[in-house]
Amino acid sequence: MKPLHVVVWNEYVHETQNPKVAAVYPKGIHQVIADGIKKFHPAYAVSTATLAEPEHGLTQERLDQTDVLLWWGHGAHDKVEDKIVDRVQARVLQGMGLIVLHSGHFSKIFKRLMGTSCALQWREAGDKERLWVCNPGHPIAAGLPPTFTLPEEEMYGEPFGIPTPEEQVFISWFEGGEVFRSGNCWHRGNGKIFYFQPGHETYPTYHDANVQRVIANAVAWAAPQGCWQDVLRAPCAKDPHEPISKK
Amino acid sequence: MKPLHVVVWNEYVHETQNPKVAAVYPKGIHQVIADGIKKFHPAYAVSTATLAEPEHGLTQERLDQTDVLLWWGHGAHDKVEDKIVDRVQARVLQGMGLIVLHSGHFSKIFKRLMGTSCALQWREAGDKERLWVCNPGHPIAAGLPPTFTLPEEEMYGEPFGIPTPEEQVFISWFEGGEVFRSGNCWHRGNGKIFYFQPGHETYPTYHDANVQRVIANAVAWAAPQGCWQDVLRAPCAKDPHEPISKK
Amino acid sequence: MKPLHVVVWNEYVHETQNPKVAAVYPKGIHQVIADGIKKFHPAYAVSTATLAEPEHGLTQERLDQTDVLLWWGHGAHDKVEDKIVDRVQARVLQGMGLIVLHSGHFSKIFKRLMGTSCALQWREAGDKERLWVCNPGHPIAAGLPPTFTLPEEEMYGEPFGIPTPEEQVFISWFEGGEVFRSGNCWHRGNGKIFYFQPGHETYPTYHDANVQRVIANAVAWAAPQGCWQDVLRAPCAKDPHEPISKK
Amino acid sequence: MKPLHVVVWNEYVHETQNPKVAAVYPKGIHQVIADGIKKFHPAYAVSTATLAEPEHGLTQERLDQTDVLLWWGHGAHDKVEDKIVDRVQARVLQGMGLIVLHSGHFSKIFKRLMGTSCALQWREAGDKERLWVCNPGHPIAAGLPPTFTLPEEEMYGEPFGIPTPEEQVFISWFEGGEVFRSGNCWHRGNGKIFYFQPGHETYPTYHDANVQRVIANAVAWAAPQGCWQDVLRAPCAKDPHEPISKK
Repeated sequence: MKPLHVVVWNEYVHETQNPKVAAVYPKGIHQVIADGIKKFHPAYAVSTATLAEPEHGLTQERLDQTDVLLWWGHGAHDKVEDKIVDRVQARVLQGMGLIVLHSGHFSKIFKRLMGTSCALQWREAGDKERLWVCNPGHPIAAGLPPTFTLPEEEMYGEPFGIPTPEEQVFISWFEGGEVFRSGNCWHRGNGKIFYFQPGHETYPTYHDANVQRVIANAVAWAAPQGCWQDVLRAPCAKDPHEPISKK
Repeated sequence: MKPLHVVVWNEYVHETQNPKVAAVYPKGIHQVIADGIKKFHPAYAVSTATLAEPEHGLTQERLDQTDVLLWWGHGAHDKVEDKIVDRVQARVLQGMGLIVLHSGHFSKIFKRLMGTSCALQWREAGDKERLWVCNPGHPIAAGLPPTFTLPEEEMYGEPFGIPTPEEQVFISWFEGGEVFRSGNCWHRGNGKIFYFQPGHETYPTYHDANVQRVIANAVAWAAPQGCWQDVLRAPCAKDPHEPISKK
Repeated sequence: MKPLHVVVWNEYVHETQNPKVAAVYPKGIHQVIADGIKKFHPAYAVSTATLAEPEHGLTQERLDQTDVLLWWGHGAHDKVEDKIVDRVQARVLQGMGLIVLHSGHFSKIFKRLMGTSCALQWREAGDKERLWVCNPGHPIAAGLPPTFTLPEEEMYGEPFGIPTPEEQVFISWFEGGEVFRSGNCWHRGNGKIFYFQPGHETYPTYHDANVQRVIANAVAWAAPQGCWQDVLRAPCAKDPHEPISKK
Repeated sequence: MKPLHVVVWNEYVHETQNPKVAAVYPKGIHQVIADGIKKFHPAYAVSTATLAEPEHGLTQERLDQTDVLLWWGHGAHDKVEDKIVDRVQARVLQGMGLIVLHSGHFSKIFKRLMGTSCALQWREAGDKERLWVCNPGHPIAAGLPPTFTLPEEEMYGEPFGIPTPEEQVFISWFEGGEVFRSGNCWHRGNGKIFYFQPGHETYPTYHDANVQRVIANAVAWAAPQGCWQDVLRAPCAKDPHEPISKK
């Protein structure tokens, strides 16, 4: 059986420009995320892709082989080419899972799939973040305690400009007084989408064992679930199934 | 009190090029729809706009005054400028109601707000269409019989590539054997969206009394419901509400 | 035009047994809630009903005239007769709005309409509660600031055993570290349901101006919206609409 | 690894009283459904239970071992004891999958979990039924053609008194002119629920290969997905996670 193909995409800019970020993620955020997934799912085929690669590392051929894509972006959202966004969107609608991380809330692909502002409040002040599991039977919460903390994170606060989540897995509490829907599920076309809020580049969030478990669980959850179909065409159904009367 | 401002937008192309359509809608589809709304809501300020007008008749000033926009397009979806689509989307997210009609399922604005393919099956064969009210207490169904028919319509069939509707008002039966989710509600940002399937340009659908009632009800339902707010920004919440400990 | 008929139901037990509660609500919680609604909607016909009245004050005749019912209960959930619960449920399905307050999460009527455990975590320790508006364009949030606090409230925490809310209006932050989906909307049948979490009997929550505004807004939102219909029968549709072939 | 435990529950009354039904289902509807599941999932542990057995065959011990329960009932809904319904509901909320078939729409357990009337229109006239897949990537639709027919079925028509389905897998077309949401998904607590409409007792519906595939797919889909937890209690969270100030 073909292993699940997972691609971790990262714009990979902060790590190369900001020594503080490089200190936390010397090989890039993508590498730590990929390693975390492998820890839980050694049989998965996990690779990475970055903005600077040709076609941002997301050629049609590669996407056609990808079951679940993870997305981390922040400062360079605008540098992602529209034709690549089109391609990723099409794959999600066909059934590829998509996991959008942290500042990816403002990525072209997330805004494209949500149709909303995806705006939120934010503050970089080292708030303690406490995540709560709202949905203890959900596979993305499997193996987690009822609540866990991150000693410092960027605050993301409500209102979060998203369509109502189909399933609410996490809500976060911030030390400075805010709350945030930090783990949200949707379907779009045949694909499953999960947004997970923690992961500011200056904090070691993706090294955290609970965060790694959430992401690993989410990859398994977002795996394509049924038949892959061409859902993008609007076919003419020339021949009726039942007789149409003359008028 | 300021009356509700309603704008009926129509690409207004088929009526000028196809004598068959011109015979059914000599003043354009938009005019018949606008007249139908006025019949039910004489106090509303109802006007029309078309593709050929400067900025497609949808200047920022006009949209800023618009409470509910209706959209009919088909052959000229691609001619709608992206900057106008951006503007309409922003207004919906701020709270403007949007009613998308028939072949508008493939308009840029509907695809933008749904994030999905919006694809469907179709057939122009004069199928009888029978609409069923799924949700008899819904305000869009007020005053309608449990079921009503259109003697001839373009068949639109499942699968319809949309996010699951938040409320299902109508489902249609077609003579040739298909079914279709023909009346669907969503919220996006502060705005309400209703998609209504009937309305092929060669049939007198918008002259039908039940169809006119559905559209008039939908306009009332989609009226902005709360406070208008700038939901598009992602503001920095510099000052925490609660004290943040030193780390 | 007939004014909107609103009934505030309260079990009215704590106020008569606990001097601390009586000091905060000398005429009962229901009276303060009713007065708060009248402040915002002087034209509404607002009355109250309590457990000790015959049929708990909810005769069929009275419910048939009620547009929106509010429900506060806590220690005496089990004393509410099942036949009254049946009656209230039937009215909600026909279109009556229902607003469930605080410990009403464990009332028979709320559990009946949700189908889930409606369980949650709780703590009576005088936590400060901070409510956040997640949905600034929602009519229940109209006129509110982005966030407001209650100096002391009973903590209600996630996981909250409810079906995913159709609209999320508020999420709360508690001083002790918890979060809670504190303002949630659903439709059931033709009726609208709103659950609002604040309101522990020992705190003056229903005297708070923001809380009163939320409740008044919720009453207006929950007003029956369409045609009232008998949605409870399963009628035989003896005569088909289209011919059925012989087999 | 423990195989998935599946129990097919049937009231098993019509088959013993009506020779026409006995001719179609000599060993009972439950046996044909169970055999159909085994065909697709030979490794599953599939057994049956009926109304007449002690505790309707659904002891606490057995339910505690059950991963997915299927439910067929019709004439004897009222004979199902409330304490058994309580037990089944509790198990669904803990994570057991539930598949409700045909006239089970009016079973106590389905009405309990939905909270709505679950009413619909019906007609026993041998209508041809045509089912459409609305959601081609859904695992319950895997391996099915875009549409398939049943030569004769009981018509079930809209409005169907249910909460809006979270996922719409099938919609049906009936020869007599009606439509019906015939394959609907919900979550309640940790459990997944699927309602599937075909299956009137006088027709050989459960012998149909496509119907068997739908049911087998649904069983796999409804399998418990995460951690099993006690979601029914409302625990006191005595010790706060963060310090609460003195007031």
